[in-house]
Amino acid sequence: MDKAEKILNIATKRGFFFPTAEIYNGPAGFWTYGHLGSLMKNKFENLWKCYFLGLNENYFEISGNAILPKKVFESSGHLDKFKDPLTECKKCHFRFRADELIEDELKINAEGLNEKELDKIIKDKKLKCPKCNSDLDKVKWFNMMFELKLGVFGEDIAYLTPESAQNPYLSFKREFSALREKIPMGLAMIGKAFRNEISPRKGFFRLREFTQAELQIFFNPEDDFDFSEVKNYKLRLYLNKKLNEIKVEDAYKKLKLPKIYLYHLAKIQQFYLDTLKIQEDKFRFRELSKEERSFYTKIHFDVELYLETLNGFKEVAGLHHRGFYDLEVHQKGSGENLEVSIDNKKILLNVLELSFGVDRNIYSLLDIFYDEDKERSLFKFPANIAPFDIAIFPLVSNEEKIVKKTKEVYNVLKNKFRIFYDSKGSIGKMYRRADEIGIKAMLTVDFESLNKNDCTLRDRDTMKQIRVKIKDLPETLNKFLEGEKLDKLGKIIK
Amino acid sequence: MDKAEKILNIATKRGFFFPTAEIYNGPAGFWTYGHLGSLMKNKFENLWKCYFLGLNENYFEISGNAILPKKVFESSGHLDKFKDPLTECKKCHFRFRADELIEDELKINAEGLNEKELDKIIKDKKLKCPKCNSDLDKVKWFNMMFELKLGVFGEDIAYLTPESAQNPYLSFKREFSALREKIPMGLAMIGKAFRNEISPRKGFFRLREFTQAELQIFFNPEDDFDFSEVKNYKLRLYLNKKLNEIKVEDAYKKLKLPKIYLYHLAKIQQFYLDTLKIQEDKFRFRELSKEERSFYTKIHFDVELYLETLNGFKEVAGLHHRGFYDLEVHQKGSGENLEVSIDNKKILLNVLELSFGVDRNIYSLLDIFYDEDKERSLFKFPANIAPFDIAIFPLVSNEEKIVKKTKEVYNVLKNKFRIFYDSKGSIGKMYRRADEIGIKAMLTVDFESLNKNDCTLRDRDTMKQIRVKIKDLPETLNKFLEGEKLDKLGKIIK
Repeated sequence: MDKAEKILNIATKRGFFFPTAEIYNGPAGFWTYGHLGSLMKNKFENLWKCYFLGLNENYFEISGNAILPKKVFESSGHLDKFKDPLTECKKCHFRFRADELIEDELKINAEGLNEKELDKIIKDKKLKCPKCNSDLDKVKWFNMMFELKLGVFGEDIAYLTPESAQNPYLSFKREFSALREKIPMGLAMIGKAFRNEISPRKGFFRLREFTQAELQIFFNPEDDFDFSEVKNYKLRLYLNKKLNEIKVEDAYKKLKLPKIYLYHLAKIQQFYLDTLKIQEDKFRFRELSKEERSFYTKIHFDVELYLETLNGFKEVAGLHHRGFYDLEVHQKGSGENLEVSIDNKKILLNVLELSFGVDRNIYSLLDIFYDEDKERSLFKFPANIAPFDIAIFPLVSNEEKIVKKTKEVYNVLKNKFRIFYDSKGSIGKMYRRADEIGIKAMLTVDFESLNKNDCTLRDRDTMKQIRVKIKDLPETLNKFLEGEKLDKLGKIIK
Repeated sequence: MDKAEKILNIATKRGFFFPTAEIYNGPAGFWTYGHLGSLMKNKFENLWKCYFLGLNENYFEISGNAILPKKVFESSGHLDKFKDPLTECKKCHFRFRADELIEDELKINAEGLNEKELDKIIKDKKLKCPKCNSDLDKVKWFNMMFELKLGVFGEDIAYLTPESAQNPYLSFKREFSALREKIPMGLAMIGKAFRNEISPRKGFFRLREFTQAELQIFFNPEDDFDFSEVKNYKLRLYLNKKLNEIKVEDAYKKLKLPKIYLYHLAKIQQFYLDTLKIQEDKFRFRELSKEERSFYTKIHFDVELYLETLNGFKEVAGLHHRGFYDLEVHQKGSGENLEVSIDNKKILLNVLELSFGVDRNIYSLLDIFYDEDKERSLFKFPANIAPFDIAIFPLVSNEEKIVKKTKEVYNVLKNKFRIFYDSKGSIGKMYRRADEIGIKAMLTVDFESLNKNDCTLRDRDTMKQIRVKIKDLPETLNKFLEGEKLDKLGKIIK
């Protein structure tokens, strides 16, 4: 079994995630978060909100709709341009994404190529249908939005939004006024996005329904921006096919990136390295070429994480300088004036977009923190993203006194921590289960506990243990979950 | 301006909520939460989760999909039965919901009537098209689900789910195993639901896209349930057209309701009265008649709140005993065995559903806590649902020392409370603004503050003030927000 299969096995068995409508053999590209995945997703979203909305007192969350009217996507360009290249087998009529087929067969990057270029590669390299080895038809473009009809006779056409971004643009005018015309103004949205992917084959990583956490920052590009807090911070930029570690202020001078852009690059990197505790060498920013990025995007770096199960660095987030494209097209399409007055001049604000794929990030955490040794599999999650803070077990579940003492420990801690209580099977089995769920701190009540009013605290990562008095548990656990080593908190007993 | 208009005015102006895609004159039935509404929605959802998942250590949240395959709704009965009665004007071809048209014109309850009964009323009462006064056509049924096509040629039909409930049923088998076969097992989901309402005319109260918070409890009806904790609690039940206050244990004896049902009724009532601080006389449970409730529902009480802006008691939540209907139809439809083994017998578990309309509850909070006096409009929200915990103002914004001291107060409190910082306009205007946002505690830094290291604390509801030392602020504010009266916390100065 390879690592991807092992992770998927644990995920489905323990309740991280599993295919939606599995009992009906439901369509590909839809996954459900079970109770563990849901706890992690909530933690990730809350960390994201605290961190990114905390950057400025004028950054706020809003919550809009999945269904938006056709006119919105006429203006945004999605109706014309949000398309994937499709090739169909002339014989078996199976349909493939042409760029992915080329990438799979030839191991080259085909993203952003036009239909002629794709056709040429398919012809030159004599690519055939991977299913039946027959000829492939010419590449056509296929719109990836889901269409809906509103009203009894479908009088209004609408679409499921393929990105959460449109909602903040549509709400710009109301919120700019409600937030009393301060800039920069940030409008975040955590919401579902929907894409009718042709062949959603990448398991949990490419979904037809997925959650995005996006922050749209409306700003005036003429304003100076204070990035002094991060000016000596070293960014990990992948440029010209190699990694460069470059100070923010040097990037400003050499790469001519705007200060507001660099500040948010630095903050995103700190979020991954300091908050999510991703190892540095698994993190990089990659700049997208003109061909790869959307035509309206002025600057586009993707956050890429190294994922062993997907054989390389994969996109999990991005920082996009969208210029005034969004407000301009919606102003034109709606006829509503979206300009704002600055120093007696009417201007359209620019948009800087921080865009995170929540599901991809959750999957990445499983890939990156998965570990195994001779006797067990485990997730070495940092405490701030683990589904539970602590696990509590009775050493044996058929001794009334021990069970009673375990409940006592549970009650002392239940309002302060998210607890996984387990009493099924031997202590060894309970440890393995908690390892697989990724719980950092495990408490066991044993016979000694009855006289000593204490329990053992086991470190998931080292499997070492100390004894802690029940009255000291809240403080000791807080320190331990914040990163203190076990041997600083007590005497290692085994 | 009536109260409904006043609330809508404040909501759209201040950023609670506004129509989606307003700049495009978007279709009815879609609303966006602005920054204030979004803060309230998050608070409501978190309160709901803490409270209801806290009832049992085996109640958990999961997170499934909005898009579900056709087979799911064939089994659940939605494809056949999730329909609204529709009548069309023979001349102008405008379409109406027949039951709502009758309710509007005749002020009688027409919910749950069949097409013959609706036709008869329209004929007997000589109802005409409200638009052009022509004859109305016979009533037809219209399915309210949104249909979608998956894949390039729409090879798979799918629907947007009209209730979040289906996801937990589809995940039952996985989660029952992951949670190690304990009952009762609760699977909650907070998610979007979608209904193609014919005429979504009730503003924010009947939406085409809305958020549900639902908890599905899987249980064995043969098991005894311990409801002793609430047995003396008095339920407010609206039965036979009048309100009965009846103890849980009397309801058990006289009304023959199951203990597990009564326990959750009591807990729902306590959530509204104790957590959301709804006045008792605005809360009731109403039992639905056989005609009103779904055919598979064995017991169905709605939570109704008295909403002045909607002229009466309106449904905001419900408690539904669904028997084994859901697991049975999905077992049959999928061919997957969904029985569980209990005492060596194979049975299908029953489902108790707690279903809350999040948007309706948010709207209700605005209706119920709205107040006004000669000089102002305000929302008297309890602190646990108000968008912000506290407001902080400088008395004047052009005195550097005062602004600096205000920032000092802000920094002392920013990690402990959600703060609205305002410095625009006179202090009177800032108070009015915070009143309209519903912020209970308002702090002002004035000239006296500079020497005394204190500020004034104003109570939104009484407009009374005390002075509080900066160092005492965290403790004093905690007490005040938890409900302590201002005069217990200091000397009233005005």
